[in-house]
Amino acid sequence: MTIAVLPASQKVHLDGRLPDWVDARFFETADELLALAPEAEIGWFDYFVDGPGTTVEAVRRAEKLRWLVTIGAGLDYLPVDVLVERGVTITKGAGLSAAPIAEYVVMLMLAFAKDYRTVMRAQERRDWLNDAPGKRQLAGSKALVIGYGAIGRALGQRLRAFDVEVTPVSRSGGDGILRADEWQGHLGEFDWVILSAPATAETQHMIGAAELAAMKQDGVLVNVARGTLVDSPALVEALTTRRIAGALLDVTDPEPLPDDHPLWAFDNVHVTMHLSGRAQDTVYARAAERFLANLEPYRAGRQPEPVYDPTTGY
Amino acid sequence: MTIAVLPASQKVHLDGRLPDWVDARFFETADELLALAPEAEIGWFDYFVDGPGTTVEAVRRAEKLRWLVTIGAGLDYLPVDVLVERGVTITKGAGLSAAPIAEYVVMLMLAFAKDYRTVMRAQERRDWLNDAPGKRQLAGSKALVIGYGAIGRALGQRLRAFDVEVTPVSRSGGDGILRADEWQGHLGEFDWVILSAPATAETQHMIGAAELAAMKQDGVLVNVARGTLVDSPALVEALTTRRIAGALLDVTDPEPLPDDHPLWAFDNVHVTMHLSGRAQDTVYARAAERFLANLEPYRAGRQPEPVYDPTTGY
Repeated sequence: MTIAVLPASQKVHLDGRLPDWVDARFFETADELLALAPEAEIGWFDYFVDGPGTTVEAVRRAEKLRWLVTIGAGLDYLPVDVLVERGVTITKGAGLSAAPIAEYVVMLMLAFAKDYRTVMRAQERRDWLNDAPGKRQLAGSKALVIGYGAIGRALGQRLRAFDVEVTPVSRSGGDGILRADEWQGHLGEFDWVILSAPATAETQHMIGAAELAAMKQDGVLVNVARGTLVDSPALVEALTTRRIAGALLDVTDPEPLPDDHPLWAFDNVHVTMHLSGRAQDTVYARAAERFLANLEPYRAGRQPEPVYDPTTGY
Repeated sequence: MTIAVLPASQKVHLDGRLPDWVDARFFETADELLALAPEAEIGWFDYFVDGPGTTVEAVRRAEKLRWLVTIGAGLDYLPVDVLVERGVTITKGAGLSAAPIAEYVVMLMLAFAKDYRTVMRAQERRDWLNDAPGKRQLAGSKALVIGYGAIGRALGQRLRAFDVEVTPVSRSGGDGILRADEWQGHLGEFDWVILSAPATAETQHMIGAAELAAMKQDGVLVNVARGTLVDSPALVEALTTRRIAGALLDVTDPEPLPDDHPLWAFDNVHVTMHLSGRAQDTVYARAAERFLANLEPYRAGRQPEPVYDPTTGY
């Protein structure tokens, strides 16, 4: 029997569907996870109630682990040294949440364009506004989408339907796609600069003072990747001096944002607390299907998909 | 010379571009419009600072009027009797604002789906939420779009990119399109019931108690057409009893909504004060192009486009 330690939230999706060689043990609390982890050969250790700390500790304790399963896509929080040393295969949630995250980004772009917060506050006051506080249109605007994985592509599909001109950036480039060393020279051409790239050594602080200065003055920065892709103090400075028109931040550096952090209070900044991927209720069901489909290949010694490489960071 | 009375806001777009047979007279205030109207053969009388009252009065005074121009699409406020009796040709703004209105509707649907108002209020309190308050996805949902003119089609294009299954309704039906006498029987199949039809005798109160009762309990009503398409007391009742999940109301009946109206206060109702078409800054430029293109046909005795028929109401 192969011991698999799994989240209790998956029980409803997996019950009666696991092959008989899997000895499934479900955890509900952090203590249960930490107690079960050392026996796990297959570990689905997702537990993010207070950040990733418990999951990281479970990985450290899981000395028999051969396959780590997660619904996350950005796995920069994982203890790379431990995983590499033990030769653990990691399957990530890439693509599972691309649609809800893309929906969230479009919502933020539209809410910014129409200044929906002002309309909302008017409703709270029962104030019938006679003119629209925000008059931007997505139609005819230009978006740079840095990082063209599942999320970037889902976003591109949606933005193009709004008649937004979308320019993707990927490591390798391609037809109509800028390479990682090309986009900096084009920053001034875009109304929206959208980050959907993984957090790696190369992308750390990829948006700093120079990049913010190169953006259009009415350009908007959108970060749905990781807070560390942006130099936070440089962003605060650019917003304070109105060097750019706004920032839509699903992620920040640090997280959670401390109470006294200036990013909370700008009238042109939306802070959405890393919620974009959580604004859905179907990811667990889809993750269960993927897990079930990976079990036989894993048992047969083939590689489950999609694999995360902790040495490259995606 | 043909006297044309035009909004001063159009001067920048028309200066130097009008043919020499047009004697252009620009108005800025309501008084200027009312004073100039009696001489107008061509009248572009749009003046909506306090509702359509001034425009209606200008039409009544314009006894020489042969061609009435407007950027509006829903022209139910016009004095039909006067216009029919005088044989005035009316060109409407149909299509000019379809893209921004469609953007607004998608914004409202996403803001409802993700409960963005709760996220926004958390930002105001500097409260880092650990879970998303709204978990609906557009992907996989079904939308009934009643009224498939320029706005309905622009909306359909955008929603389909979110993997929403869109079912249009039009008067005449067609492939994959329900007819005006068919949609009632299907109301229970849709997550979103979206109104983008003209206000006519046939569409008055097309959504009443019976239709609201036929909707899914987690269905959402979206009205971007005219408030009168919905029976307001029946809607308030359906919301009070949670018969439907919410309402996204760019338009209401009456407008403006009085301070004490119950629609202001539901936590699942978004009231956006008829702003959807105003959330843009390009409609005047586009309307000017259309007006200029219509001048020669008009002078040659051909019909300018697109014409509004006050007897059918669209």
